[in-house]
Amino acid sequence: MEYTAINLHDKFAKFSDHFVPRIIARMNNYHFKLVKSEGDFVWHSHAETDETFMIIKGKLTIEFRDGAVDLEAGEMFVIPKGVEHKPFAEKECHVLLIEPAGTINTGDAGGELTADDTLWI
Amino acid sequence: MEYTAINLHDKFAKFSDHFVPRIIARMNNYHFKLVKSEGDFVWHSHAETDETFMIIKGKLTIEFRDGAVDLEAGEMFVIPKGVEHKPFAEKECHVLLIEPAGTINTGDAGGELTADDTLWI
Repeated sequence: MEYTAINLHDKFAKFSDHFVPRIIARMNNYHFKLVKSEGDFVWHSHAETDETFMIIKGKLTIEFRDGAVDLEAGEMFVIPKGVEHKPFAEKECHVLLIEPAGTINTGDAGGELTADDTLWI
Repeated sequence: MEYTAINLHDKFAKFSDHFVPRIIARMNNYHFKLVKSEGDFVWHSHAETDETFMIIKGKLTIEFRDGAVDLEAGEMFVIPKGVEHKPFAEKECHVLLIEPAGTINTGDAGGELTADDTLWI
């Protein structure tokens, strides 16, 4: 049978818009998603689940109501469920998200940055 | 509050043995684990769960009964549950594993390479 590696950089090269996650793999009921972030995302939280951010390229700051964490390539952070957060990237940042299938990017906040959660690439 | 990034390279620098996964983060009931692989691991499968391999440094081949996949840094692969596989690395390879907490490294096979599944670093 043919088994194919999933190459993150090749997948990132296939899209250029910001804040629109693309699914690249499924593990049980979890999705691995790639997203390019630049500028401010919206404050939001996910009531039902933790959410993992892994930085593949660039830098991302995740702000919390009582602090912040600065992440760069090779670093990760797990946002606990229910915790409000706001990602910010001064320059374009390539992020791998790991979270349950069906997790909406804007969580409880909704709004115009809400993306389709079923987009594969 | 103090929020701290998890730096994969810093975590890898804290141990040197092979085939002994270290937990670095938890997301819901899943663990992120680092492992250094070199040489042949054992044929095994996980009856209850998929398992994600992400290569951080080096190269890893995952053999299946009917094929194989070659992975290098920046690539990932999800082993479907129940599928027999055998990782092999000619030189030391740094791997990030993502799988449910309690997943045993040797799966159904057991044997002397079976590692503690509760080791944090």
